[in-house]
Amino acid sequence: MKKPWSGRFKEKTAATVETFTESISFDFRLWPYDIQGSIAHVRMLGRKRVLKGDEVERIVSGLEEIASEIEAGRFRFKRGLEDIHMNIEAALIRKIGPLGGKLHTARSRNDQIALDLRLYLRAEAGECLKMMRRLQRVLLRLAERHVETVMPGYTHLQRAQPVTLGHHLLAYVEMLQRDRERLEDALKRINTLPLGACALAGTTLPIDRAYVARLLGFKRIAENSMDAVSDRDFAIEFLSFGAILMMHLSRLAEELVLWSTEEFSFLELPDAFATGSSIMPQKKNPDVAELIRGKSGRVYGALLSLLTTMKALPLTYNRDMQEDKIPLFDTVDTLKAVLTVLIEMLPALKFNRGRMRETAAGGYALATDLAEYLVSKGLPFRKAHEVAGGIVRYAVEKGVELQELTLEEYRRFSPLIEEDVFASITLEGALRLRRSRGGTSPEETRRQIKRLKKLI
Amino acid sequence: MKKPWSGRFKEKTAATVETFTESISFDFRLWPYDIQGSIAHVRMLGRKRVLKGDEVERIVSGLEEIASEIEAGRFRFKRGLEDIHMNIEAALIRKIGPLGGKLHTARSRNDQIALDLRLYLRAEAGECLKMMRRLQRVLLRLAERHVETVMPGYTHLQRAQPVTLGHHLLAYVEMLQRDRERLEDALKRINTLPLGACALAGTTLPIDRAYVARLLGFKRIAENSMDAVSDRDFAIEFLSFGAILMMHLSRLAEELVLWSTEEFSFLELPDAFATGSSIMPQKKNPDVAELIRGKSGRVYGALLSLLTTMKALPLTYNRDMQEDKIPLFDTVDTLKAVLTVLIEMLPALKFNRGRMRETAAGGYALATDLAEYLVSKGLPFRKAHEVAGGIVRYAVEKGVELQELTLEEYRRFSPLIEEDVFASITLEGALRLRRSRGGTSPEETRRQIKRLKKLI
Amino acid sequence: MKKPWSGRFKEKTAATVETFTESISFDFRLWPYDIQGSIAHVRMLGRKRVLKGDEVERIVSGLEEIASEIEAGRFRFKRGLEDIHMNIEAALIRKIGPLGGKLHTARSRNDQIALDLRLYLRAEAGECLKMMRRLQRVLLRLAERHVETVMPGYTHLQRAQPVTLGHHLLAYVEMLQRDRERLEDALKRINTLPLGACALAGTTLPIDRAYVARLLGFKRIAENSMDAVSDRDFAIEFLSFGAILMMHLSRLAEELVLWSTEEFSFLELPDAFATGSSIMPQKKNPDVAELIRGKSGRVYGALLSLLTTMKALPLTYNRDMQEDKIPLFDTVDTLKAVLTVLIEMLPALKFNRGRMRETAAGGYALATDLAEYLVSKGLPFRKAHEVAGGIVRYAVEKGVELQELTLEEYRRFSPLIEEDVFASITLEGALRLRRSRGGTSPEETRRQIKRLKKLI
Amino acid sequence: MKKPWSGRFKEKTAATVETFTESISFDFRLWPYDIQGSIAHVRMLGRKRVLKGDEVERIVSGLEEIASEIEAGRFRFKRGLEDIHMNIEAALIRKIGPLGGKLHTARSRNDQIALDLRLYLRAEAGECLKMMRRLQRVLLRLAERHVETVMPGYTHLQRAQPVTLGHHLLAYVEMLQRDRERLEDALKRINTLPLGACALAGTTLPIDRAYVARLLGFKRIAENSMDAVSDRDFAIEFLSFGAILMMHLSRLAEELVLWSTEEFSFLELPDAFATGSSIMPQKKNPDVAELIRGKSGRVYGALLSLLTTMKALPLTYNRDMQEDKIPLFDTVDTLKAVLTVLIEMLPALKFNRGRMRETAAGGYALATDLAEYLVSKGLPFRKAHEVAGGIVRYAVEKGVELQELTLEEYRRFSPLIEEDVFASITLEGALRLRRSRGGTSPEETRRQIKRLKKLI
Repeated sequence: MKKPWSGRFKEKTAATVETFTESISFDFRLWPYDIQGSIAHVRMLGRKRVLKGDEVERIVSGLEEIASEIEAGRFRFKRGLEDIHMNIEAALIRKIGPLGGKLHTARSRNDQIALDLRLYLRAEAGECLKMMRRLQRVLLRLAERHVETVMPGYTHLQRAQPVTLGHHLLAYVEMLQRDRERLEDALKRINTLPLGACALAGTTLPIDRAYVARLLGFKRIAENSMDAVSDRDFAIEFLSFGAILMMHLSRLAEELVLWSTEEFSFLELPDAFATGSSIMPQKKNPDVAELIRGKSGRVYGALLSLLTTMKALPLTYNRDMQEDKIPLFDTVDTLKAVLTVLIEMLPALKFNRGRMRETAAGGYALATDLAEYLVSKGLPFRKAHEVAGGIVRYAVEKGVELQELTLEEYRRFSPLIEEDVFASITLEGALRLRRSRGGTSPEETRRQIKRLKKLI
Repeated sequence: MKKPWSGRFKEKTAATVETFTESISFDFRLWPYDIQGSIAHVRMLGRKRVLKGDEVERIVSGLEEIASEIEAGRFRFKRGLEDIHMNIEAALIRKIGPLGGKLHTARSRNDQIALDLRLYLRAEAGECLKMMRRLQRVLLRLAERHVETVMPGYTHLQRAQPVTLGHHLLAYVEMLQRDRERLEDALKRINTLPLGACALAGTTLPIDRAYVARLLGFKRIAENSMDAVSDRDFAIEFLSFGAILMMHLSRLAEELVLWSTEEFSFLELPDAFATGSSIMPQKKNPDVAELIRGKSGRVYGALLSLLTTMKALPLTYNRDMQEDKIPLFDTVDTLKAVLTVLIEMLPALKFNRGRMRETAAGGYALATDLAEYLVSKGLPFRKAHEVAGGIVRYAVEKGVELQELTLEEYRRFSPLIEEDVFASITLEGALRLRRSRGGTSPEETRRQIKRLKKLI
Repeated sequence: MKKPWSGRFKEKTAATVETFTESISFDFRLWPYDIQGSIAHVRMLGRKRVLKGDEVERIVSGLEEIASEIEAGRFRFKRGLEDIHMNIEAALIRKIGPLGGKLHTARSRNDQIALDLRLYLRAEAGECLKMMRRLQRVLLRLAERHVETVMPGYTHLQRAQPVTLGHHLLAYVEMLQRDRERLEDALKRINTLPLGACALAGTTLPIDRAYVARLLGFKRIAENSMDAVSDRDFAIEFLSFGAILMMHLSRLAEELVLWSTEEFSFLELPDAFATGSSIMPQKKNPDVAELIRGKSGRVYGALLSLLTTMKALPLTYNRDMQEDKIPLFDTVDTLKAVLTVLIEMLPALKFNRGRMRETAAGGYALATDLAEYLVSKGLPFRKAHEVAGGIVRYAVEKGVELQELTLEEYRRFSPLIEEDVFASITLEGALRLRRSRGGTSPEETRRQIKRLKKLI
Repeated sequence: MKKPWSGRFKEKTAATVETFTESISFDFRLWPYDIQGSIAHVRMLGRKRVLKGDEVERIVSGLEEIASEIEAGRFRFKRGLEDIHMNIEAALIRKIGPLGGKLHTARSRNDQIALDLRLYLRAEAGECLKMMRRLQRVLLRLAERHVETVMPGYTHLQRAQPVTLGHHLLAYVEMLQRDRERLEDALKRINTLPLGACALAGTTLPIDRAYVARLLGFKRIAENSMDAVSDRDFAIEFLSFGAILMMHLSRLAEELVLWSTEEFSFLELPDAFATGSSIMPQKKNPDVAELIRGKSGRVYGALLSLLTTMKALPLTYNRDMQEDKIPLFDTVDTLKAVLTVLIEMLPALKFNRGRMRETAAGGYALATDLAEYLVSKGLPFRKAHEVAGGIVRYAVEKGVELQELTLEEYRRFSPLIEEDVFASITLEGALRLRRSRGGTSPEETRRQIKRLKKLI
C-alpha cells in the first residue's frame, strides 16, 4: 500500500515496522470524530475559497458515505494505511478521485489527531458527567431512605460515634460533586480547537479557525501552533480526574466489601449482584465491589503511563505521543463500566438496620457524648475527656456498656455527673443533637439532601 | 509525657511506637496555620458563649506568645507530644493553666489537621501562582526579544519547518497559562473550611462554622462532616497539577540541554548557571536543566504515593492519611525551587542567532512551502506533497539544498513550477506568510504577546 | 568557596544555582562509604606506584582523622562544596596540603558516587535481610503457638473454610522468604565495583580494579566503564524489592486492622501498641498497622520516581541521576522502621481464640467438606457442589447452621447422605483432614514450621 | 447459562454484572495452559485412584479435542461462562457427560488461575530471554564492527572524552545481561506449582502435588496453600523486570533519536525503518525509536497498576486480583514487539564514521588527557585539572582547539609541559591508552567482546 508520505522514500517500510507503528487497530474508534472534523475543515476551506463549492459538496458527501459504511460494518480498516486519518482519506480518494487529495490542504495529522482526541474526550467526558450525576441521584435516594438509620461511624475502622447511614452516604455524594466539578474544569481545557496548527507552524493558506471552532462547538482556540500539536494536558488531566474518582469509588467498594462480611453484616448482597464459588457451595462474594476496588490500579497506571510518556519530550509532536490513546480509551471504558454497575447495584442493596443500630450502641461509641456532657457542666474539654476515658476503662473491665453503669458509679469519677447523664448518652440524643452544619443529625442531613438535590 | 488521650489506657506507649507514629518532626512547619486556626476557633467559641470573653482573650494571647516563641526559635517541639496540635496545646496549658484545655472544645485533631493543611496549601499555592506568573513574564520578555529570531521547528526532533524562537517560547507561556488555570481551579476546592466536622460527626455544642470561614477567608464550607475529615482530594489535586507542571518544565529542560550541546549550539550557558567536571577540565554542564528534568520523577512519585495511600480506605479518618504530608511538602518545596531557578536563569541565556538561522535554512525545512506553492498552483495537496517529496529526494541525492536547484530541474518534476517558486522557498517568506491564527509569523506572534500580556 | 572545576570558568556560580544543585544536605550520610572507598583507592594507587608509600599513608591517616571528626560531630559540611566527595577532599587538602589533591587521581565523581551508593546499599540491604529474618522468626514463633488455633479462612473477605491461625501466619513467612530471596538476588548486582570507570571512559593511568574490589569485598566488577557510571539498576531493583515487601506488609497490616475491629474481635491490641483519640475517650486505634499500610504509597512512589528520572537518559552520567538518593534513602529508612515496629509488636498481640473458633464454625464454612463428603460417596464434584449449595440455601432460609439439620433433611437433597455426614462436618475434621502438602492441617503445618526453621 | 456455583442462588446474575465481572474476553489466551494443567491434574487423580483409569483417559481425550477445536478456531467462548476455566469445563461436560464434572475434584479456580498464569508467564519469559539474547548478539556484532570507530563520549550530553562506538554499544549489552539475569532470578519464583492449594486450605482428598510438579516441569511447590492462591509476586516481579528493561531501551531509543538528527548526524535511518510526514515532504522520522521510548510509560504503568491493585488485600484470594491479567498480557506483548523491531532494525543502521570522528576531536574532549599528562609529570590531579581548565579557557577565547596551540602558549600555563604534550592529545592516543579494565581502548573492548560472547 502506498504511503501518503512516500515521495522521498526509495525503500518500502519493513513489515515489522508497519506492525509496530500502526495505530489503526486502536484508533479506528475515533472515526466519527475524524469525519466530523474533516467535514468542518472542508466547509471552512470552501468558505475561504480554497476549495470550490462543488468540491466541498463532493468531499462532504464522500465522507458521509464512508461514515455510513463504517457504521454499517462494511468498511475494512487496513493496517498498511497506518491510522484512522489515512484510512479515511484513502477511501475518499477511491470514492471521489484525486479531489479527495484536497482534504488534507492546510492540515496535518499532527493537528488532526489532536482534534479527534479532543472531540472524542469531550463526548465521553459528557457521558461520564451524566453517569456521575445519575450515581449521585441513586445515592441521594438511598440517603433519603436512611436519614434515620443509625450506624456506627468509624475512624481507624474503630467505632467512633453513632452516625446515620444517610449522612454516611452523603459523604460520597460530596466526593462525586467535587469529581464532577473537576471534570467540568478540565472540560474548559479539553474543549479547545487545535486544528489550524497544521504540522507545527500554522499555514500560509488563508484559513478561518474561529469558523471551524464555531462549527465544532469549541469554546476556545489553541493560540500557539507549536503548543497545539505538542499538548496532551487535556488527556492527562482527564486521567487524573479519573484516578481521583476511582480512589473515591475504591473507598465505597471497600465499605461494601466490609459491610457484606458476616462480621459486619450491615448489608446483604442481592443474588443478582453477587457471585459464587466454584468450590465452596456456601459462598456469596462481593465481586463487583472487589473489581471496582481493583480497577483503581488500572486507572492509576494509565495516569502514570501518560505522564511518563510525556516526560522530557522536546517540542513539538513526537511519535511517543501515539501512546496516549490506549491508556485514555481504557480509562474511559473503565470509568463508564464502573459507574454503570454501581448505578444498578446500589438501589438493590438491603441494609440490615437492626444489626447496624445494635452495633452503633455498643463499643462505647457514646463516650464523646459523655465528655461533652461534662463540658456542659463546666469542665474544660481536656479534663472531661480524661474523666470519660477513666469511666470507659472501668466499664471495659467490668464488661458492661456505659448505659449500664449506675449513677453512683458515675459519681465516683466526677461529682458533676447527675441523673441527666443518662439522657445524654442515648443513641437518639447523640444523633439528634449533632446538628452543627454538616453534622449527622437527621434534621441537618435533610437540609443537606435538599441542598444537593438542587445542585445535581 | 502524658498523652491527651491516656484516660482509658493503662500501659504506656512503647518507645518504638512513639517514634514510628509521631509527626511533629515534619508537621512542625504547620505551626503558623495551626495557631491561626485555633485563634479563629476560640473567637467563634466566644461569640457563641461557649467561652467567656476573658477566657477567649487569655487563650488568644497565650497562642500569640507561643507563635512569637516559635518564630524566635525559642520553642522546643517534643516527640512525645506526637504532633503540632498537641505540642501547641500542651504549651498553652503550661502557660495559662487548665483553661488551655478548653481550646479543644468542639474540635478534634481530625478536622484540625485538615484545616492546617488547607491553610498551608492555600498559602503555598498562592506563592506558586505568583512565581508561575513571574516565569511567564520572563518568557514573554525573551519571546519579545526573539520575535524575528529564526530557528528550525522540530517534529520527531527532525527539522520540520522554520519557526521563530519567540513563537517557540510562547508555547511554554501557554502551558504555564493552563497550569495556572488548573491551580486556580484546584484552589476553589482547597479553599474550603473543614473545621467544625469535629471527629467525624459534628458536635452537640453550638458552633458557627460560617463565622470561622469568614475569619479565615474560606470561600466554601465542607458540608458533610464525615467527608470533611476523610477528604484529601485537595492535596492530590495539587500534586497532579504539580506533576503536569513538572512535565512541562521537563520538556523545557530537555530543550535547554539539547540546545546547549555542541551539536545544536543554539545556546550558551552563562558560567553562573553551569557547573564543571571534577575530572574533565573543558566541561560546562547544564546541571540546572538536568536536575529540573530529573525532579519530574520526584513529583510524579509524590502524586502516586498519595493516590496509593488513599486507595480503598474506609471512611472516615485513618492514620494512613498522615502520610499525606511528606509528599505534599516535598512537592511544594520542589516546585518553588524549580520555578525560582528558572526565573533567574532564563534571562541570562545567550542564544546563538547565527547558528539557529543557518540550521533553519538547511535540512529541506522549506519543502512544505514548496508543496503549498504547488497547491496554490492548483495541485491537490496529496499530489503536491508527492511531487515535493520527489524533488527533495533528488536534491538529497545530489547533495544540494532546495534553493540550489535550477528552474529547469524543478520543471522536470512539475510543469506548474515557475520562476516565482524561488520567492516562496525563502526563510523570510516561510515565516512571514504563516500568519494563520497561532502561526509562527512575527506579526501573529506579536499579536499573541499582546494578548498574553493582558492575561498575565 | 573555590570549585574543584573552576579552571575554565570566569564567573562565579549563582547563589540560587548553588542551592539548587548541592547534594551535601542529603548525601552527607554517605561519608563512611566515601572514606572507605577513598582509602581503598589510595592503597591501590600505592600498590601501582602511582603514589609513593608515604603519600599513601599520609592520605589514609588524613582520611581517618576526618572520619573521626565526622563521627564525633566536629565536622562542618559546606554547601558551597556541593557534595560529600568535595567536602572530604577539601578537608583533606586543608589537613595535609596539596598532596590531598592526588586523592582524585584516576577517579571521577561519576564512579565515586556510584561506589558510595553501592557500598551504602550493600550495608543497608544486609540490615534489611537481618530484620526480615527476625520478623520471620517472630511469625514462626507465633505460628507455632497457634498451630491448633482455629479461625475462618477467607476468600473475598467472606468466610470460606476453617484454617488455623498458625497456617495463616505461615503465609506471611513464605512471602518474606521470597522477599529475602529477591533481595539476595539483587545483592549480586548491587555488590559490583564501579570504581575505575573514571568519568566514563576508563583511564590512561595504571590501575588495578580487581585489587580494589578485593579490598572492598565486591564480588563483581562493572565491566564497561560507560555502563558503570550510567547504571542505577541496583537502586531501582532495591526499590522494587521494597515495593513488593511493603505490599506484603500492607496486607498483614490490613488484617491487623480488620482483626482489631469490634466486628471481628480476633485481636486485642496491647495498650503499648495502640493510640487513643484526642476527642473520643473510648478509642483504641491500630495506628501502627494503619501507618504501615499507608507507607506502601511512599515506597511505591519512590520506585516510580527513580524509574521516571532514569527514563530516556542518554549515556553516560547525567545530573538527573542525583535524584536517586532521596527516594533510596527514604525507602531504606521506611523499611527499617516498619520492620522494627512489627518485630516488636507482633509478639505482644493477644488473639481471642474463643471468638475465632466460634466464627470459624459459623457461616456455613463447612459446606465444602459436605461437598467433598458427597464426592467420596461417588458423586462428580460439580454435582456434589450443586447439592451442597442447595442444602446451604435451605439452611440459610431456615436460619440454622449445617450441623443443626437432621439426617432426614439432608436426605431430601441426596440419598447418598448417611449418618457419617455429621462426622465430616466438624471443625476438627475439616482441619485435621486437610493434610495435603501445604494444607491447613496441624500436622502439615508443623512439618512446614520445621522446614522453615531450617531455611531461616 | 447455568453458573457452576448456582446451587445456593435464587436469582439470576444481572446482565451488567455478567459483563462487568467476566474475564473470558481476555483470559481466553490462557487456554493452552489451562488444558495442559487440567491434563496433569487428571493424570494425578488417576494415579491416586481418585479417578479410574478409563475416566482419566476419557477426560484427557475430551480436553485434547477441545484444544484442537480452539486451535482450529472452531470453539466459541461464551461470556456467560465467565472465564477460561468454566468455558473449557462446560465444553468437556457437553462432550463426555457428567464425568466431566469430576475434572474439578480437589481443585478450585483459585489455584487453577494461579497455575495457568504461571505456565503462561514461564513460557513467555522464556521467549523474552531468547529475544534478549538475540538482541545482545546483534549489538555484539555491531560493536565488533565498530571497535575502532571513534565517537565522542558524553556526560550531561556534553562531549566528555573520546570513546569508540563499540565500547558504547557494549554498555547496552551489559544492561541486557543484567536484565536477563534478573528475569532468570524471577523465573525461579515464577516456576513454582500452586495447584493443590485448592480454594485456600488444601484438600481432604489424597493428592500428589510433587507428581503434578514433575509432569508440568515445576522446580518448586508453593508450600502454603493460603499463600499459593494469594500470591501475585511472580507477576509483579516480571513487570518490574520489564520496567527496567524498557528504561534501558528508552535510553537506547533516545540515543537513536539524537544520533538521527541533522545536528548530530551520526546515523542514517534506512528508509525501511523510518516513516515520513503527511505534510512535510522532506521528513524522515525515527518513529520506531520514539515509540520504544514512549512505551516505557506503558510498562511503568502496568507495574504500578498491579502494585496498587494488590495493596492491602487481606488474605486469601480476592476478585481484585483478576486485574492482574491485562497489565501482564500487555507488558509481555509490548516487550516482545519492542525486542523484535530492535533486533531487525539495529543491523540496518548506517553510522557516519567521518562525522563521529570529527565530532570526537572537537569540543576540547582531550582536556582530560592533557590533565593526565600533567599528572604523569608529577602535578597532583587537582592542580593539573586547574591548569588544563585554564588552557581550555584560553583556547575557547582564542577560538581554537587544543591541538592548535603552540608549545610556547602551553608553557605559559605550566613549565612542566614539553613537546611530548602533542602526542598525548591525539584521538588515537586517548583511546589506545585507556586500557584499564572496562575502559574504551580497542584492545580492552575486544577482550570484553570475547568475554560477552561466552556469556551469551
